[in-house]
Amino acid sequence: MKKFLNQVDTLLDESLNGFAKAHSDIIQLNSQPHFVQRVQPKRNKVALISGGGSGHEPLHTGFVGVGMLDAACPGQVFTSPTPDQMLAAAQAVAGDAGVLFIVKNYAGDVMNFEIAAEMLDCPNMIVLVNDDVSLPKSHSTGRRGVAGTLIVEKIVGAAAENGADLATCKALGDRVNAATASMGVALNSCTVPALGKPTFTLSDTEMEMGVGIHGEHGRETLPLSSATEIVEHLANAIDAELQPKAGQTVLLHINGFGATPLMELYLIYELAEQFWQQRGITIVRSLVGNYTTSIDMAGCSITMTLMDEELLALWDAPLHTAALRWGC
Amino acid sequence: MKKFLNQVDTLLDESLNGFAKAHSDIIQLNSQPHFVQRVQPKRNKVALISGGGSGHEPLHTGFVGVGMLDAACPGQVFTSPTPDQMLAAAQAVAGDAGVLFIVKNYAGDVMNFEIAAEMLDCPNMIVLVNDDVSLPKSHSTGRRGVAGTLIVEKIVGAAAENGADLATCKALGDRVNAATASMGVALNSCTVPALGKPTFTLSDTEMEMGVGIHGEHGRETLPLSSATEIVEHLANAIDAELQPKAGQTVLLHINGFGATPLMELYLIYELAEQFWQQRGITIVRSLVGNYTTSIDMAGCSITMTLMDEELLALWDAPLHTAALRWGC
Repeated sequence: MKKFLNQVDTLLDESLNGFAKAHSDIIQLNSQPHFVQRVQPKRNKVALISGGGSGHEPLHTGFVGVGMLDAACPGQVFTSPTPDQMLAAAQAVAGDAGVLFIVKNYAGDVMNFEIAAEMLDCPNMIVLVNDDVSLPKSHSTGRRGVAGTLIVEKIVGAAAENGADLATCKALGDRVNAATASMGVALNSCTVPALGKPTFTLSDTEMEMGVGIHGEHGRETLPLSSATEIVEHLANAIDAELQPKAGQTVLLHINGFGATPLMELYLIYELAEQFWQQRGITIVRSLVGNYTTSIDMAGCSITMTLMDEELLALWDAPLHTAALRWGC
Repeated sequence: MKKFLNQVDTLLDESLNGFAKAHSDIIQLNSQPHFVQRVQPKRNKVALISGGGSGHEPLHTGFVGVGMLDAACPGQVFTSPTPDQMLAAAQAVAGDAGVLFIVKNYAGDVMNFEIAAEMLDCPNMIVLVNDDVSLPKSHSTGRRGVAGTLIVEKIVGAAAENGADLATCKALGDRVNAATASMGVALNSCTVPALGKPTFTLSDTEMEMGVGIHGEHGRETLPLSSATEIVEHLANAIDAELQPKAGQTVLLHINGFGATPLMELYLIYELAEQFWQQRGITIVRSLVGNYTTSIDMAGCSITMTLMDEELLALWDAPLHTAALRWGC
């Protein structure tokens, strides 16, 4: 394993300390228990809180700030944060308007956020994100939450900043999640520091189609094909799920898993744009880059969200976080 | 070689097309010859133009926009752009105030930008960036231009946007370059698509200290050490070059080479911050992420710029490019 680290046990702490120092104008870090919160909490709004295992940076800590999350709880690498983190984060940032937890659909995350929600003595609700269409809806634990999570966080974040109440934010989050579909492909595995070796192996001529953001087995291991064929595979699955009609406006997000160059991600964007342009779909907003990563996995995912005027205005609303910033 | 591509020959074109579509609000692409320019050229200012081999994205195309570059000329991967690209870009964006070319110090880039400068029939000057302290100043072709380039481009870009004249922009660029030092380390080689195999090889227990952004051999191949020791090695070289005194304010930029997770880059930031904090240096601005990449190399570089009030105000000035955005 070749990584920049001192000890596996101290990697997360040292990294979070650096993150907090580099962005002290936006966020502050609480260490016991771990959570990142806005440097100036705004208590007269619904507090948006997310979290999950580390290793997906900038998700979620990089999305704390004006117009998006109020706090994020980082677990150990690929490990759910604990309820005490969520509870402490909520107590640090929430006011009378209550708390909306935005949770990716993984058993550990769901269980721990539900425990925190029960323990919390202010109004609260949970939005479950399950945008990964590589699994069937009937899958035993449901579909996974992947790169669409940031779109839910951004759009609901803008609504909360504008003063939307808890029920409105919850309904909006569910609506964005339902309008969003993602699917990914891996060329090479990530290496979890505590494990010290790749999570899975692929030969030089294979790819993992429908891979999860922790290296979970996808739909199938396939022979490595051309970028055009890969995009058609991913885009067909997303298109079958969302069934956009000609004339539909969408947001298209190409997400890198950590080790894929921007040059290749823009190539993927070009091919996905062609795929949907031929079907009469209009991409009104886009986001291309490494936002929901899988440590050092080579690969990418495509995410589409069906947009309307309301969602577009919320997407465009001012945003100031470590990883995304516009309008301020 | 495992990459997302159709054919090696079409990768750059397809990627640039995707980049142009994803950022059509900021930039437009000219195809014959290749250059990227602001969608709305502002002709009553000094035009800032940069360029170089592709494979370092987002450098330079990702830095075209309000407050930074007016145009960028992408060459083939790790290959200088040609003088006709630079000339066409200059003719597309320049007005009476003239052109400032910002050029990383590589023989091919320097030769081609000098040819373009001679052919151009409006006032023009060149700022040569050579911030890589891994090589001695006496090196036969001089020191390489690396991640400090974006700091020169940002600061001079703000001055040009404010109406500074050509001589002022040139002097400012030279001053920022002289106040900037960088050094990098690789854990693994990049793979150039046309080559199809890694540029160099390192064993599982080796690292390349002082590596160039094309995988050039550095100061020495060393046994892989702890992150703290790596940071001390890089920071000592930078510190010896710039010799910041206690009380000096600086900008600290941790740059990833493409395949290094953000979690590790923030760990590097933390350790570098500690290194200089112990010496009484104050980091007033920071930038952590993959900005001057080497395709899919695993590794990072540290860049420091000695700041003053003028440079700080220019760094903070509004900026709207594909890769960096603040204040608008």
